[in-house]
Amino acid sequence: MMIGRVIGNIWATRKEDSLNGLKLMIVQRLDTVNGESLENFVAVDCVGSGIGDKVLITTGSSARKALRNPESPVDASIVGIIDEDKD
Amino acid sequence: MMIGRVIGNIWATRKEDSLNGLKLMIVQRLDTVNGESLENFVAVDCVGSGIGDKVLITTGSSARKALRNPESPVDASIVGIIDEDKD
Amino acid sequence: MMIGRVIGNIWATRKEDSLNGLKLMIVQRLDTVNGESLENFVAVDCVGSGIGDKVLITTGSSARKALRNPESPVDASIVGIIDEDKD
Amino acid sequence: MMIGRVIGNIWATRKEDSLNGLKLMIVQRLDTVNGESLENFVAVDCVGSGIGDKVLITTGSSARKALRNPESPVDASIVGIIDEDKD
Amino acid sequence: MMIGRVIGNIWATRKEDSLNGLKLMIVQRLDTVNGESLENFVAVDCVGSGIGDKVLITTGSSARKALRNPESPVDASIVGIIDEDKD
Repeated sequence: MMIGRVIGNIWATRKEDSLNGLKLMIVQRLDTVNGESLENFVAVDCVGSGIGDKVLITTGSSARKALRNPESPVDASIVGIIDEDKD
Repeated sequence: MMIGRVIGNIWATRKEDSLNGLKLMIVQRLDTVNGESLENFVAVDCVGSGIGDKVLITTGSSARKALRNPESPVDASIVGIIDEDKD
Repeated sequence: MMIGRVIGNIWATRKEDSLNGLKLMIVQRLDTVNGESLENFVAVDCVGSGIGDKVLITTGSSARKALRNPESPVDASIVGIIDEDKD
Repeated sequence: MMIGRVIGNIWATRKEDSLNGLKLMIVQRLDTVNGESLENFVAVDCVGSGIGDKVLITTGSSARKALRNPESPVDASIVGIIDEDKD
Repeated sequence: MMIGRVIGNIWATRKEDSLNGLKLMIVQRLDTVNGESLENFVAVDCVGSGIGDKVLITTGSSARKALRNPESPVDASIVGIIDEDKD
């Protein structure tokens, strides 16, 4: 899993039907050691996260396991909001 | 998921049978924060996107969930056309 | 999917049984915009491609969908020969 | 699989239900040849590893095979503690 | 698939049960065109390869297809020993 910061969200009026009702967040991946910002991407929120939250993201087929509809074409999901990290 | 710009399409007369009828688009991935162009690749259009559209792309096994035939050998699908993004 | 050029093939006398009879091609990934050569890897030919052909490659679990035996340990397949591309 | 060093752990009070009870470790990937530190990420501990241990990590859908609940949204698991390596 | 050189092996006394009896090899990925050494990682040997062999490696869920127990948490398998390559 990756650690990232929620930095925005996107709207897509025209989209695959099974994506309706999902919150599409823009997430910036963070290096946990030096805090550096890495690549950004879009993930579906599954835990009520908002902009500014530090979150845990799962990718690939595992991302679908966090969705109510595991047949949605989703490859990244926010599965936790991080309290603190020790490194 | 990734954000990208549709920049072209490809034709392949000789191809695996289950790809027949699919629209194969060339997509340039975009960095959402600084707008920089990243790598490009081919994705199947599932939402009626055209050249110039800013789109949402799902990759891996999840890409097949957006297809009418989920047994097609496809690893990237365009699953939304983006209205606007806030970051 | 990726676009690449077939630049060779490999032989492996000793190999996993279900790979017998498959054509193992060396493919050089291409950047579609500037034509630059990117990383190279091995893919199974599923469409009768030969050295020099510009091809479409699917990776991951989706690569197995193009094989007669979808239980083969294959993670990259050539699924089309490209006629031309517009970008 | 990758080799890494456990360098910390994270807490997420708010998380996807099926992650409850899992130990979420921060792992720094290591280059096996020159010992260089590479990217870091979060993996679920499946073998009783602790901070400082050199571990073996499996990613993707295979990471779920090491969990008691293979339906958890997990894409990286610690599956071994390394005794020594020869290279 | 990737081409690599077997450069060592690892021992993990404490590991996930289904990894027992598997040979865990350290593999250095090779660029097929210029012979350059790329990243290294751990793969399960499925074809009797040894240190120094040039091998073919499959990754992701496809790596499990080469195992006697496809439920093992393995994401990289050596599936062939390469005789020669033409590029």
